[in-house]
Amino acid sequence: MRALIVGRFQPFHNGHFEIIKTVLERNSSVIIGIGSAQYSHTLKDPFTAGERHLMISETLEEAKISNFYLVPIEDVNSNPLWVAHVEALTPRFDIVYTNNSLVKRLFKEKNYKVESLKLLNRSDWSGTRIRERIMKGENWEQYVPEPVARIIKEIDGPQRIRDLSVSDGD
Amino acid sequence: MRALIVGRFQPFHNGHFEIIKTVLERNSSVIIGIGSAQYSHTLKDPFTAGERHLMISETLEEAKISNFYLVPIEDVNSNPLWVAHVEALTPRFDIVYTNNSLVKRLFKEKNYKVESLKLLNRSDWSGTRIRERIMKGENWEQYVPEPVARIIKEIDGPQRIRDLSVSDGD
Amino acid sequence: MRALIVGRFQPFHNGHFEIIKTVLERNSSVIIGIGSAQYSHTLKDPFTAGERHLMISETLEEAKISNFYLVPIEDVNSNPLWVAHVEALTPRFDIVYTNNSLVKRLFKEKNYKVESLKLLNRSDWSGTRIRERIMKGENWEQYVPEPVARIIKEIDGPQRIRDLSVSDGD
Amino acid sequence: MRALIVGRFQPFHNGHFEIIKTVLERNSSVIIGIGSAQYSHTLKDPFTAGERHLMISETLEEAKISNFYLVPIEDVNSNPLWVAHVEALTPRFDIVYTNNSLVKRLFKEKNYKVESLKLLNRSDWSGTRIRERIMKGENWEQYVPEPVARIIKEIDGPQRIRDLSVSDGD
Amino acid sequence: MRALIVGRFQPFHNGHFEIIKTVLERNSSVIIGIGSAQYSHTLKDPFTAGERHLMISETLEEAKISNFYLVPIEDVNSNPLWVAHVEALTPRFDIVYTNNSLVKRLFKEKNYKVESLKLLNRSDWSGTRIRERIMKGENWEQYVPEPVARIIKEIDGPQRIRDLSVSDGD
Amino acid sequence: MRALIVGRFQPFHNGHFEIIKTVLERNSSVIIGIGSAQYSHTLKDPFTAGERHLMISETLEEAKISNFYLVPIEDVNSNPLWVAHVEALTPRFDIVYTNNSLVKRLFKEKNYKVESLKLLNRSDWSGTRIRERIMKGENWEQYVPEPVARIIKEIDGPQRIRDLSVSDGD
Repeated sequence: MRALIVGRFQPFHNGHFEIIKTVLERNSSVIIGIGSAQYSHTLKDPFTAGERHLMISETLEEAKISNFYLVPIEDVNSNPLWVAHVEALTPRFDIVYTNNSLVKRLFKEKNYKVESLKLLNRSDWSGTRIRERIMKGENWEQYVPEPVARIIKEIDGPQRIRDLSVSDGD
Repeated sequence: MRALIVGRFQPFHNGHFEIIKTVLERNSSVIIGIGSAQYSHTLKDPFTAGERHLMISETLEEAKISNFYLVPIEDVNSNPLWVAHVEALTPRFDIVYTNNSLVKRLFKEKNYKVESLKLLNRSDWSGTRIRERIMKGENWEQYVPEPVARIIKEIDGPQRIRDLSVSDGD
Repeated sequence: MRALIVGRFQPFHNGHFEIIKTVLERNSSVIIGIGSAQYSHTLKDPFTAGERHLMISETLEEAKISNFYLVPIEDVNSNPLWVAHVEALTPRFDIVYTNNSLVKRLFKEKNYKVESLKLLNRSDWSGTRIRERIMKGENWEQYVPEPVARIIKEIDGPQRIRDLSVSDGD
Repeated sequence: MRALIVGRFQPFHNGHFEIIKTVLERNSSVIIGIGSAQYSHTLKDPFTAGERHLMISETLEEAKISNFYLVPIEDVNSNPLWVAHVEALTPRFDIVYTNNSLVKRLFKEKNYKVESLKLLNRSDWSGTRIRERIMKGENWEQYVPEPVARIIKEIDGPQRIRDLSVSDGD
Repeated sequence: MRALIVGRFQPFHNGHFEIIKTVLERNSSVIIGIGSAQYSHTLKDPFTAGERHLMISETLEEAKISNFYLVPIEDVNSNPLWVAHVEALTPRFDIVYTNNSLVKRLFKEKNYKVESLKLLNRSDWSGTRIRERIMKGENWEQYVPEPVARIIKEIDGPQRIRDLSVSDGD
Repeated sequence: MRALIVGRFQPFHNGHFEIIKTVLERNSSVIIGIGSAQYSHTLKDPFTAGERHLMISETLEEAKISNFYLVPIEDVNSNPLWVAHVEALTPRFDIVYTNNSLVKRLFKEKNYKVESLKLLNRSDWSGTRIRERIMKGENWEQYVPEPVARIIKEIDGPQRIRDLSVSDGD
């Protein structure tokens, strides 16, 4: 069985990593869709698709995981086209794992098998929470895999997030 | 005279139906533009353009009304193009009925005759209010024409709306 | 059974009309998709979606046919999204009639029942051939339903086509 | 040195004008990018790109300033493409002046020299504040250059803004 | 009277310059729309909108002409929206000068006054012909205003055109 | 050094595979961009991005190659944005290998190091030629890696190509 999971991964954190490992216990391979791929440089979506691609592939490679397909997926501006868009960009899959209510609904309506996964440690392993910690200069490295922390620093990510948090006049 | 009315019709309700009947008392035919046609599967816009097309045409057909043109109209991402976009998609029209301030303004600037219509029973006959009632499992069927209630149930609409109302982590 | 047929209808001609009548002998209603809806004012696609909407609805109305749904369908710039795009814009359908090889293939891959229809009088009842006749000032009215000829003249269609056929410098 | 400044100029006000004069004291010419060019007819973005083009060019012409390039710049729906988009639309430039945190960040990442300018009289010389004053019928003319006030009146701008401020049902 | 002329200006040549001078004899100012603004780096459209902006403004400035507005205009993928798109991007205009049959037709249908201008020396003052000469290494400088020749060389235009003319495998 | 190569891979053939192996002899890893990702179901671009993703990853996996990043890249409708688009979607790279004249030119203008690679056996190892062979029912399997031939058959590729080669009326 080939599984699909889709997330924004802003950034890829320990909770995402646990989910992928769980999915791979139950399936022979996993397609990881990097959603909202065209967005970056905002407080909600600070990292480019390429930066997220690197975070995920380095993490999995260091963990000796190789049975995955990594696919950036740009948003299409119309929900009823989204499943067909994902299908066009990815190898075929048999099951979808997601905790997103819209993704769940859209795949169900196209007759896909959809399952939820229990999110672990949800207050700390949360993209929103981690971006806040980075912005405020709090400790955040422990909530993401080591390669992710390294890449965020290499690309000067904390400064990018702080720069973007300044509000402006017009 | 051929009239134009444009709405999102999420869903088509009794207030919309009354407006169309009033417009047809004063004009020989009406073009009904289904606005924001590309959107669906959100709490604000749960139904697809095709589902809304069916709601409206079944209602009018059962009411023996046939002098209408039904036209889905996708949003264009630029207000000053919108009137030309509507003109390209529809047969020519002589007058526009709308209570939307933007639509009113855009057509006026292109020298169209624009009229408002008194909305009846506005607290109950409101798309926002009806979607809320569906989401909360309250009574809603009485505020929409019978064929609309039937179609919403056939497409499992209440479940779709409830599914979409769950909030997620990241 | 509800059937779907999709065409560009540039313009709607006798061959299209015969196909619709044949489809309605075998099905309870038909959805007529006006394809490439956003295009007009070229030699290949001279008429707007609104003009084509009017051609078809006037023809069917005068023929006392009312069990049809008319839906303009803009091209999406990606074939694998096209079937989902059509599904979002139209009421549900059970069978697709088309002689277009791409449309046939795309619907087949999504497991739709697809049938071809014999085109009658193909040398004269051809959009390409009729546009050529209009451009050259040859007789063309006999190849389209009477309301279509009337509408093309009302909108000054022959002059539009001749104007567009002039080639320019840069 | 050729400088770039980008703003939405909704409308062009005295603060913008002061900035341009300061930039021209330090550079031989300035490219003025009219950002979010495709938007208009909303409370945040009431004026079209063409109207803003006229406001700026009339003001500079009356002030005998001619060493400027005026370029409307539509938003692209992806931040990492924005600098390349600006580069494609404008003559080459050596330095960017901006107080917008996103613009600053994006140009910095592409290795441009970026400088801030002190905004003067920020409570009154503010697009947001001036649009509010127009909407409420308060005095606003003194906060914009004289040609801008004249153009806003010619295009019936205050009525447009008031019309757009009405809220609607659905 | 304010006039509009729209062209691709690939590149801006003597024929374009003559037209502008003629238009300014008959009107108080001219809006110069740089069409197909988003395209560049093809054999048909080698120069970016910014490069073309510079070619035109330098030429007019050196000729002491200042009563012009220069506006890049991206193509919209739908002819019936194009006039509204131009109207949104430009100051208001009273008359359109064009030799392009589509542009002529579209403005006429929106009730604009449209005039043609006799093209002079059409075999040499032709964008197509000049691009060919550049590609083949023939003499081309004499067919464009002096500032245009200078800019094309500064941006290494002849090499760009030659590079793009190589055909590839797949 | 991380290298980038971009191709349409319609389909991925022996020539592409040789190039990747050569690139990996000279670099520590390679990003493989699947260009024109949104296109499929035409004679020139029969396969979806997902199908091409699978062809490439299966081939490399069976060859025990793992130091690659596979990234679908949709066309953007503007050449000067294309390099920024690629940069946003991919991990950073140091060198670009390409035989496409436009790609070469665009990266050079952004100061990338660009190199060509000798294409081997160009008459047989050609996407165009292989698609023709599939369409005509000629022998084609020997020109693509074994996993590619297997996948093309699994997805019924030859029938798709033959279906799409039928020409239609209008």
